[in-house]
Amino acid sequence: MNDTLPSWHNTSTKQAILDFVAAVTDEASPQYVPPAGRIAVFDNDGTLWCEKPMVIQMDFILRQMVARAASEPELRTQQPWQAAWERDFAWFGEAMTQHYLGDDSAMRVVLSGILALSDGQAVEEVEAGARAFVDNERHPTLGLAYRDCVYQPMLELLRYLDDHGFSNTIVSGGGRDFMRGFAQDVYGVPRERVIGSTVAYRYVEDEHGGAIVQRADLDVINDGPDKAVQIWSVLGRRPILAAGNSNGDLAMLAFAGGPSLPALRLLVVHDDGEREFEYSSGAEKALGMTLSQGWTAVSMQRDWRQIFPG
Amino acid sequence: MNDTLPSWHNTSTKQAILDFVAAVTDEASPQYVPPAGRIAVFDNDGTLWCEKPMVIQMDFILRQMVARAASEPELRTQQPWQAAWERDFAWFGEAMTQHYLGDDSAMRVVLSGILALSDGQAVEEVEAGARAFVDNERHPTLGLAYRDCVYQPMLELLRYLDDHGFSNTIVSGGGRDFMRGFAQDVYGVPRERVIGSTVAYRYVEDEHGGAIVQRADLDVINDGPDKAVQIWSVLGRRPILAAGNSNGDLAMLAFAGGPSLPALRLLVVHDDGEREFEYSSGAEKALGMTLSQGWTAVSMQRDWRQIFPG
Repeated sequence: MNDTLPSWHNTSTKQAILDFVAAVTDEASPQYVPPAGRIAVFDNDGTLWCEKPMVIQMDFILRQMVARAASEPELRTQQPWQAAWERDFAWFGEAMTQHYLGDDSAMRVVLSGILALSDGQAVEEVEAGARAFVDNERHPTLGLAYRDCVYQPMLELLRYLDDHGFSNTIVSGGGRDFMRGFAQDVYGVPRERVIGSTVAYRYVEDEHGGAIVQRADLDVINDGPDKAVQIWSVLGRRPILAAGNSNGDLAMLAFAGGPSLPALRLLVVHDDGEREFEYSSGAEKALGMTLSQGWTAVSMQRDWRQIFPG
Repeated sequence: MNDTLPSWHNTSTKQAILDFVAAVTDEASPQYVPPAGRIAVFDNDGTLWCEKPMVIQMDFILRQMVARAASEPELRTQQPWQAAWERDFAWFGEAMTQHYLGDDSAMRVVLSGILALSDGQAVEEVEAGARAFVDNERHPTLGLAYRDCVYQPMLELLRYLDDHGFSNTIVSGGGRDFMRGFAQDVYGVPRERVIGSTVAYRYVEDEHGGAIVQRADLDVINDGPDKAVQIWSVLGRRPILAAGNSNGDLAMLAFAGGPSLPALRLLVVHDDGEREFEYSSGAEKALGMTLSQGWTAVSMQRDWRQIFPG
């Protein structure tokens, strides 16, 4: 047991994972699932990597907004560019707070800026930017490069599932094209198995077979019930393992298994303020469901020997 | 050469396929492409199976419309239900003709009927219906079950590519959920590699983890430039082999290869009125591009020893 998932303590959580994988891969077991059906889905922010003090992609977006305001000074008196330019992160935090309270007016302003950044960007540029960002930029408080803000126990879980014939898919509220820039490198998850929020595309003819370019129109916000919808759209299969950490993952967690398949549902609980961040805001309902439905809570404090790689 | 692709005559077309596959799978070749990049995309109607006298899915839809009109008599005086109920296929043909002439008013009526059929259907029901339809119903003139209206040479090509590390993906204007009902059985293409036109979904909570149900809203019409867009959305990769048969496949064919990858572009030409159907309507521009760009025309008459299985 110590050689498998070495960054996991030998707790009931680790045992639940080992038991589940043993059952679904044993042809003699009533829970056996053939490899094609071994679909595992993972939220990204707060599940595979750190999401505090803000979602990592938000730092990527803010840097782009600053760069845009640097080259277009007239933007510096308009939101959201002004807040980015002045590093007024409280303004963005307040937009998020208002969103949770039911007022989306400021979030719409933030979104309009994000869409303006997307407009006309070739998908390859977005990916190259994302890759350079996670490789070169650093987390503001952890003292780690962003690419090292991933949870080592989850990396081990991804590998362990790979080794047992599972197909791992990322199902995140974050941007699909952003994540495709590093999903293979950082997580070993191939680009066709990255599901996320998307802007619309346009096909632009050119002499080299045409290019795929982002438009300034929202396509999918991959959160809540839309996570289940997108999983079916892209994969056409119901997962048997789902891992998340917030209320936005509830439908995805519930969707795993369904009427006839076995399922393991993991909820990562951020209860380790010393080694990571301690918070439950936005996860209250998911924590309640985990308790009431017998899902598997993953306590960062109790279950993880080590949090970050290295 | 005779053992490989046995239903193909030993023509320059077959040689072009063999040469391309040899080049992209030979590590010593400058055209070498690692397996993860060996993406092959195939249109369905008229490329993998017969599309005359009407697209096969249209028969599926018409039968559903008849069944609906049988149980709801008031529909029998409203289009498109009336035309379906009275087997007035000319009315549907006229809607298509008007569509090609730039007047979509009748096509919108057809579409409203299709969306009404979709509304509230669980995806599993759609797939089971499609499977039963292609297994049990027969082509009106060829004397074949629909599942045998597939082109044997293309089945052999799919297998040959599979055997050489390619990932085959269907990219069709037809309905994705319809095709997912039989793509694995009939083509050996797994459900996550079926890209098609889609209606929107809704996630319906239930005590078994929720269900994915079709809504009466169009999502994607997977034709023309949107084929390139959907290929990137779902796969995040540019194909190196593309096969189509009509103007709706032009962008997909052009998209293959792109600025840096090798590419083989196949256009199936329906020039065999004796064994299949002879027509070029809707493919004029694609035929012109195939000639002018040096793409590879696949003549059903010259290149195929046998058209249907068995």
